[in-house]
Amino acid sequence: MANPQILFIAGTHGNEMNAPWLFNQWIKNPDLINVNDLDIFKVIGNPKALKDCKRYLDFDLNRSFRKEFLNDEKMKFYEVERAREILSKFGPKGLNKCQIAIDLHSTTSAMGSCIVVYGRRPADLAIASLLQARIGFPIYLHEGDDNQKGFLVESWPCGFVIEIGPVPQGLLNAQVINQNRLALEISLQEFAKLGAKKTTFPKKVAIHRHIKSIDFPRSPFGEIDAVVHPLRQCSDWNPIENGAPLFIKADGTIIRYEGKEKLVPVFINEAAYAEKNIAMSLTKREVWDFSKDWEIAINEIFFR
Amino acid sequence: MANPQILFIAGTHGNEMNAPWLFNQWIKNPDLINVNDLDIFKVIGNPKALKDCKRYLDFDLNRSFRKEFLNDEKMKFYEVERAREILSKFGPKGLNKCQIAIDLHSTTSAMGSCIVVYGRRPADLAIASLLQARIGFPIYLHEGDDNQKGFLVESWPCGFVIEIGPVPQGLLNAQVINQNRLALEISLQEFAKLGAKKTTFPKKVAIHRHIKSIDFPRSPFGEIDAVVHPLRQCSDWNPIENGAPLFIKADGTIIRYEGKEKLVPVFINEAAYAEKNIAMSLTKREVWDFSKDWEIAINEIFFR
Repeated sequence: MANPQILFIAGTHGNEMNAPWLFNQWIKNPDLINVNDLDIFKVIGNPKALKDCKRYLDFDLNRSFRKEFLNDEKMKFYEVERAREILSKFGPKGLNKCQIAIDLHSTTSAMGSCIVVYGRRPADLAIASLLQARIGFPIYLHEGDDNQKGFLVESWPCGFVIEIGPVPQGLLNAQVINQNRLALEISLQEFAKLGAKKTTFPKKVAIHRHIKSIDFPRSPFGEIDAVVHPLRQCSDWNPIENGAPLFIKADGTIIRYEGKEKLVPVFINEAAYAEKNIAMSLTKREVWDFSKDWEIAINEIFFR
Repeated sequence: MANPQILFIAGTHGNEMNAPWLFNQWIKNPDLINVNDLDIFKVIGNPKALKDCKRYLDFDLNRSFRKEFLNDEKMKFYEVERAREILSKFGPKGLNKCQIAIDLHSTTSAMGSCIVVYGRRPADLAIASLLQARIGFPIYLHEGDDNQKGFLVESWPCGFVIEIGPVPQGLLNAQVINQNRLALEISLQEFAKLGAKKTTFPKKVAIHRHIKSIDFPRSPFGEIDAVVHPLRQCSDWNPIENGAPLFIKADGTIIRYEGKEKLVPVFINEAAYAEKNIAMSLTKREVWDFSKDWEIAINEIFFR
């Protein structure tokens, strides 16, 4: 019975520089962040892309952890090779067996500091609930999106993304670095409490459940024909109702949200998502009861 | 005696997408912006880089207009070839002889909407003064910087940069597009007034004169060792005095401005300048008398 080993990853996207910068400073000065006697590892996800300040070289690393890619020996994309390498070093069956992976990202969207979980894995929801109860992080539950697969953290029994923004790609920003640091410190403290059986789990958790992503209006040639409406720009997490402006054309024409449900846009105008045909994602805010199963699942990871 | 032909350039840097987007919409809908019967041309500076959403392929196009590059037949950088092509089509001795060039840029710095002029060319200062009197644009006078040469607009008898920010690279933003449009419309109106001899020149102009650029604190290995202090981030145009915080290290150490003069930082934390070893530039705010020579110079361009 041993506490789990925990992997922290920064720079999974090479143009998201703030967390890698913090990691490098932390390596130079190990006292910078208190690890609370936990067994942690930290790794730069995509060092080659980071050097070039590009999101990726061949393929998005955070979509490269699909089993059919990892198991296909002919698949030689740099990022798929790197996914295999990270797993062989820090995967649940790797050299240093980690059970939890936390992947630090930044975004050009005004997401603040938030948690992204992929699917409804009980252990992920347990920790996300703890972090929300502690410091109010909103939680974006990404699920049911067949166009997007192979996220890094899904290769570990427990894992989630911490997403911070807005910050331009390729730019260091003191506030964003502090947000990363706070998220790291809080996570480490909650893990330490879990290991010491000092955790009190909350009764409720607010979840923003992924409903769908929507693309920019485009010309017949695929060019972006309207931009995010100023009322939507930087208003991630603010609900919209039928008729709310979504996009605006150069001639002033407004494209509006049409739907009966009150939904909540997130990742509004994330620079890297235009190539994925995503202008924003729409979520539904729900308050869930904290499930005993989640507590059991995280305790199984902590006290195997 | 004919009014000058005027060249508007967008996308000189391929990851500054807002002005090119506006140009494309304007081409599709020529009524979008009133050209006031002026003879204008518009061109995308670096279409290949724009397609790749990169600042440049081989070399910064806005540093490629150095005579020694343009005249050196062995110099085959894409951007130098492109500089030659733009000059052959729209240069003062080109196929379509333009006398004025306006180059639209965006920045990750919080520069608002402003004008950059290179050196103290009388005609540039005349138009910059008119635009400032009309709509309050601050003016950054870039001069005496031996490390930076070959700016595009210097190849025309009159020309300046309109710089708008903050906006991340590679991102369309409705407000930034509107700022571009306003700057274009105001410029066209002032040119039309000049052509119709209806201009009243101001008596004074406020200039932010370039003093020096400063780099990030760096480790012996060249790595950025401290980031822009939160009090400086997004506070372009706000003066600093001796002791003002400039940078902060991960351990909280603050690096301060040391100098007797009150100076005004601009281009604070522009993402593209880290590779040029510029964290910010320092300027001195001065109020100059409007010179009769400037009026003569711009009238010579308008009434040859």
